[in-house]
Amino acid sequence: MSISPFAPRKLTPLPAIEGVRLAACEAGIRYAGRKDLMLALLAPGTVAGGVLTRSKTASAPVDWCRERLAGGTARALVVNSGNANAFTGMKGRDAVRATAEAAAEAAGCAMEDVFLASTGVIGEPLDPAKFTGRIAELARAAEAGTWESAARAIMTTDTYPKLATRSVEIDGRDVTVNGIAKGAGMIAPDMATMLAFIFTDAPLSAAAAQGLCEAGVTDTFNAITIDSDTSTSDTVLLFATCAAGARGVNKLASADDARGAGLTAAVEDVMRDLAHQVVRDGEGASKFIAVTITGAEDDQAARRIGLCVANSPLVKTAFAGEDPNWGRVVMAVGKSGEAADRDKLAIWFGDIQVAADGEVAPGYSEEDGAAYMKGAELELRVDVGVGSAASTVWTCDLTREYISINADYRS
Amino acid sequence: MSISPFAPRKLTPLPAIEGVRLAACEAGIRYAGRKDLMLALLAPGTVAGGVLTRSKTASAPVDWCRERLAGGTARALVVNSGNANAFTGMKGRDAVRATAEAAAEAAGCAMEDVFLASTGVIGEPLDPAKFTGRIAELARAAEAGTWESAARAIMTTDTYPKLATRSVEIDGRDVTVNGIAKGAGMIAPDMATMLAFIFTDAPLSAAAAQGLCEAGVTDTFNAITIDSDTSTSDTVLLFATCAAGARGVNKLASADDARGAGLTAAVEDVMRDLAHQVVRDGEGASKFIAVTITGAEDDQAARRIGLCVANSPLVKTAFAGEDPNWGRVVMAVGKSGEAADRDKLAIWFGDIQVAADGEVAPGYSEEDGAAYMKGAELELRVDVGVGSAASTVWTCDLTREYISINADYRS
Repeated sequence: MSISPFAPRKLTPLPAIEGVRLAACEAGIRYAGRKDLMLALLAPGTVAGGVLTRSKTASAPVDWCRERLAGGTARALVVNSGNANAFTGMKGRDAVRATAEAAAEAAGCAMEDVFLASTGVIGEPLDPAKFTGRIAELARAAEAGTWESAARAIMTTDTYPKLATRSVEIDGRDVTVNGIAKGAGMIAPDMATMLAFIFTDAPLSAAAAQGLCEAGVTDTFNAITIDSDTSTSDTVLLFATCAAGARGVNKLASADDARGAGLTAAVEDVMRDLAHQVVRDGEGASKFIAVTITGAEDDQAARRIGLCVANSPLVKTAFAGEDPNWGRVVMAVGKSGEAADRDKLAIWFGDIQVAADGEVAPGYSEEDGAAYMKGAELELRVDVGVGSAASTVWTCDLTREYISINADYRS
Repeated sequence: MSISPFAPRKLTPLPAIEGVRLAACEAGIRYAGRKDLMLALLAPGTVAGGVLTRSKTASAPVDWCRERLAGGTARALVVNSGNANAFTGMKGRDAVRATAEAAAEAAGCAMEDVFLASTGVIGEPLDPAKFTGRIAELARAAEAGTWESAARAIMTTDTYPKLATRSVEIDGRDVTVNGIAKGAGMIAPDMATMLAFIFTDAPLSAAAAQGLCEAGVTDTFNAITIDSDTSTSDTVLLFATCAAGARGVNKLASADDARGAGLTAAVEDVMRDLAHQVVRDGEGASKFIAVTITGAEDDQAARRIGLCVANSPLVKTAFAGEDPNWGRVVMAVGKSGEAADRDKLAIWFGDIQVAADGEVAPGYSEEDGAAYMKGAELELRVDVGVGSAASTVWTCDLTREYISINADYRS
């Protein structure tokens, strides 16, 4: 498998976050010669918020996390790659329980404070005996700051690890927000997302953690699509160790607290950064495309039209072929079912207006359009001419490599 | 472009239908060396029914047909390939009018009795001067029974012409139903379909023609998808010349008339035959797949889950790779948003049960599954375990050839 052309030359170094220790190892769950098991130990007092897939065939770890989020406290996170533990029936529930028990013992906490995520093949039983014995060892080895190793351990068809960090001041003190994610395929988080874990030392109530997480995903993870296929395992968790409380930062009781505005922005920034990295590493991607819809009836309509364009195989293959095929964009807008005035439709590739008032723009030159499409980072903007709402979604192109990866890889 | 592996060795010969005369020619609209303009002359007394795309960016000919269907009478049909006359603004309306005028003059009828359809590139103005001069010539040349030539003239990326015929008795006399269609890409007729034209000599009221057309598309053209992309030009028209009236068949006033049950079935049969031919000739298709959902809450839910599975790039690439990857089927069921009981889900590839009660079926062998997937005509069945409604949709796989065709072809 070739590395994405968007792979960063240098990975972002992430600072340690007080109260978070990490470790990863090669447990041999499915892959050979690479890390596939990750443990995060969280200091006492850590709270958790999260957003999970709304898939009707959600995985066993998603069910588990949904229950744990009701409690809102967290002491450990265990993630494995290679097997999603999805569609595994009672065996899946048993595997989740065995993993949580092993992690609780290793972390010295209640089983209810253990969060779990799994990613990889669907439908094959996950044998917890393969790796539960390794969790105590990981707990002993866990240290602050080993983010890259953790990010690598959760990869499947990803070609690079995804990391992001922001720092923000609250009450005159710095707090940090770090995040790691994995993506690659089966990425169309209509409700939630693939796996992403956000960590902060900011002191938050569980309600504030949940609120920050929900607010953050809307225009980040929920605004990306690689292939329109929504995973059984989509999970975004936000862990706040509250360690900055000891440095004089007062607890944020709610995500709406004005003191937390900077933190809200930082969490969304980290999520957007990770979401874009996920799209750039989309299976077979050669183009990174921002699709912006303006002039829509309302925000939801703008988002739906944007996703309709971004998910259209004909639009995506046109990008792959570097063809400024705005006729296919017109088609995709039309099939969305949302209000659009065909005879006012306007379309831009970057700054080049290709269509105006429902037909080709006067003065548009196909050569200009074709030249623009040769770039790797592209913007497509459509004004649908019925209102003032706007929305941006991000996607990648659909290439022969996507087919190669998915006609051969059992995910 | 290689010919579909499903191309028929021998085309179905279609009998003449009294009251229908056909002609086609090379007008050079876009393609060189092939017919791209077709005229059907319809005898006085012909009635028409039709179903058109619900795309918000419908083509000018679709707008035209929608107005004409209100009248319900027809004397001529003009179809061109190479240019869809979609998203062409006022120029598109002018082109439609010029074409209808030329056809009305050639057919000796009112402009309001001319139906039009165009297929091909979107967004480029269609210059009617290129071909309106040829319509009188086509009218002089028109003869009964030249169905294959007409079916070839409406092709775009189709690799073979699509024809179907049935004969049925009403009032003790034979009536005939013939149909031609084109498909290939941008095929996901959620509401209507690509281009398909059905002809019968049965005596019908306009209301009966409309009713037959609407009833027919539901489980035929509306139950197929190639790439989830809905065309701007989807058009199904049914023309009844009523010529069998002179042979003693009494007029059917309504599609619900019990005397017309055989005709209703014949129309649906012709439509299903054409719809399947469209899928078999889907861009890049190497597999023809029937996806049946059972145990759903209601018919609509069954259809939606079926389309969700049939449109999933990951399911379609698994078929291309001959991988019995039922994990992806579980994912696609889950993302549909429709009710499904994950822990009762059952899945079959052909007669091979791969999943039962929400996990891999006891005794399922991956070798059996892989052997089955090597076939060209495949059946996938999923019971979602919540009700008793069922629905079947048909699709093809997603191959490298689809990408090649669409990264290069400007459609």
